Amino acid sequence: MEKTNNFLFSGKYCGLKKNKALDLGLMISKVPLRVSAVFTKNKIKAAPVVISKKNSKNIIKALIVNSGNANACNGKYGFEDAKRVALSVAKKTGADESNIFICSTGLIGERLDASKIERAVNELAEYASGEESGFNDFAEAIMTTDTFSKTSFKDVLLNGAKYKIFGTAKGSGMIMPNMATMLAFIFTDIPIEKEIADEMFKECIGESFNSITVDGETSTNDTAAFFYPAENPLIKKRGANYNAAKAALSDLCLDLAKMIVKDGEGATKFVRVTVKNAYTESGAKKIALTVANSPLFKTMITGEDLNWGRIMAAVGRASVPLKSDKIDIYINDKIIVENSAASKKLTKAIEETVLSPDEIELTIDLKCGKKSRSVLTCNFTREYIDINASYRS
Amino acid sequence: MEKTNNFLFSGKYCGLKKNKALDLGLMISKVPLRVSAVFTKNKIKAAPVVISKKNSKNIIKALIVNSGNANACNGKYGFEDAKRVALSVAKKTGADESNIFICSTGLIGERLDASKIERAVNELAEYASGEESGFNDFAEAIMTTDTFSKTSFKDVLLNGAKYKIFGTAKGSGMIMPNMATMLAFIFTDIPIEKEIADEMFKECIGESFNSITVDGETSTNDTAAFFYPAENPLIKKRGANYNAAKAALSDLCLDLAKMIVKDGEGATKFVRVTVKNAYTESGAKKIALTVANSPLFKTMITGEDLNWGRIMAAVGRASVPLKSDKIDIYINDKIIVENSAASKKLTKAIEETVLSPDEIELTIDLKCGKKSRSVLTCNFTREYIDINASYRS
Repeated sequence: MEKTNNFLFSGKYCGLKKNKALDLGLMISKVPLRVSAVFTKNKIKAAPVVISKKNSKNIIKALIVNSGNANACNGKYGFEDAKRVALSVAKKTGADESNIFICSTGLIGERLDASKIERAVNELAEYASGEESGFNDFAEAIMTTDTFSKTSFKDVLLNGAKYKIFGTAKGSGMIMPNMATMLAFIFTDIPIEKEIADEMFKECIGESFNSITVDGETSTNDTAAFFYPAENPLIKKRGANYNAAKAALSDLCLDLAKMIVKDGEGATKFVRVTVKNAYTESGAKKIALTVANSPLFKTMITGEDLNWGRIMAAVGRASVPLKSDKIDIYINDKIIVENSAASKKLTKAIEETVLSPDEIELTIDLKCGKKSRSVLTCNFTREYIDINASYRS
Repeated sequence: MEKTNNFLFSGKYCGLKKNKALDLGLMISKVPLRVSAVFTKNKIKAAPVVISKKNSKNIIKALIVNSGNANACNGKYGFEDAKRVALSVAKKTGADESNIFICSTGLIGERLDASKIERAVNELAEYASGEESGFNDFAEAIMTTDTFSKTSFKDVLLNGAKYKIFGTAKGSGMIMPNMATMLAFIFTDIPIEKEIADEMFKECIGESFNSITVDGETSTNDTAAFFYPAENPLIKKRGANYNAAKAALSDLCLDLAKMIVKDGEGATKFVRVTVKNAYTESGAKKIALTVANSPLFKTMITGEDLNWGRIMAAVGRASVPLKSDKIDIYINDKIIVENSAASKKLTKAIEETVLSPDEIELTIDLKCGKKSRSVLTCNFTREYIDINASYRS
């Protein structure tokens, strides 16, 4: 990545994570930013989510993220501690606390020790830089059970000039549409009008972060935010520039979403479930998600043991209108099921090998309408159980 | 169990199961029966489900059940084969095929070899008996991945005379409300009018089989059926006899439902999730099910590592109206969460031991309405993954 001009990043260990890995990330912007943000739909929202949702209407000057503690379900202390964090960053950057975007991820229900963050903010701000290393530290600091840090970078040409869009995300367990235990932060130096950026980001989210599932869980803290310069907007409406920026943003979101699924807890296989020719797009998505979240389907992928009846059972369980005797199923372009029964082309050889690849394309053709939808997921392994049977200790 | 006078049972191996365990069960009734039955809500229904649903309006003379093959997703062959099965039993018992109730459970999408069943029916009918051994063979013949056969017996006194209610069920994987991969057959010598028996059975199902979940799956074949003599009904309306019979039937259904959960694939712990003081009963049930089906909750139970934030996250994820700062959580009578934050009474000692018992009572008090609902479930273990990664082979 080339040097970022407006955004300065840093990351450090401030004492929240038991394993002493980086657990606090800071972004300071040299210019006033706007943010388009999407938050968890969980009825139980962490304090930082409530605060950032409010602040997202304002100019943003800095972003602070801690891992190791979700600051969720801490009652009034949660809000007090989150405010202390925002205030310490505001002081250091000469901003108001209403101009700070804050996020937390990690264990729910343990009080956040805000003093650890307060003590670390000075050093974090001092070392914040536009070099790649600063951004990489930031990306590392937001990880929880992730096994690798997730970043992506795109260039966009607008009116002959080169702009950057780049971002990082964390995921792993609790990943399910409508913002999982997922944080995603995307930055660009393209100035955009907030209203049109909100639309652009919402469309990109729908096709990426809101189309992935690891285990059907959704957390109290999920946030995806897109930061861009607030002044002299270059994009104010749809058109060529909008399209170019959206294409890059969309690619970037999909890159990050795929990385989250590939890094699903204990996952060894990547699966795209596509439901074609449904009556409605929401019906297609509901079926794709029911299959993608089915423990019997996810364990079958692990076992590489084709038992397509489990796919049929999940399709029917979704309770979406369909023609129950018309369903075709393809795995990696091999036809498995034709008109809701075993295809004549399904040989023993196909049965034994079709689930061997690490990337599985499952296509369910309902042959009753014209709407399609894809969902990305991964398999369920013993390691998922092992990781989650002992997350706290 | 005392000898059953009207019902004759038998079970045998007819060649459908790879492990040569019993795979075909027959019940012949000496008197004409009526049946109250509930079938899967899956949009993809196995052929025997479609046929038995139709026949359940008629007098029933016999019930035949095979394991080892679900006869689901076999197109027109599925119906042809199911009809052959019904016809062979009809011939042997001197009934019409419309008086036979048939069920299948096992692998989806492999053609059922009806000739194996046809060849076995003569012998099955010959050995069918009212002795306990006949019923036990029948109960064994309906098992798939179950590790033990599930039976329960109750006596009922009506007008001073003793009547029997007894039944058997199979479950294991794919258990989720609205009839999981679950078969349950219940028999009584109390003559009941069909209309009132339908009501009685529906109420009992709601509190038992429709309140259990192993893995959130629902199959193509699920059926629960309650058989009783058709003539000279003793119970025609609500009243003392209705209440006595319903109490016994309800107990029996709950016995069988509990056995199914305790025998969940790989399960080592039994969990009752109760949601109290919700605005609506359906809301209480939705939250209880979201928690009970949460892989993060189910793996936490396995790890005995209290991470109550996962319970809170699942409660919020259910998208049911509630007061997000008022939630109390109890585990086995110990208070864990008070007003949506860690209870002051939650000590280190409680944290470390509260999940040790094999039976866990989880109570979530929403403190916002007056409706309650319980759901029974089990934990997720490595063994669930192992069993389901290789079910076919």
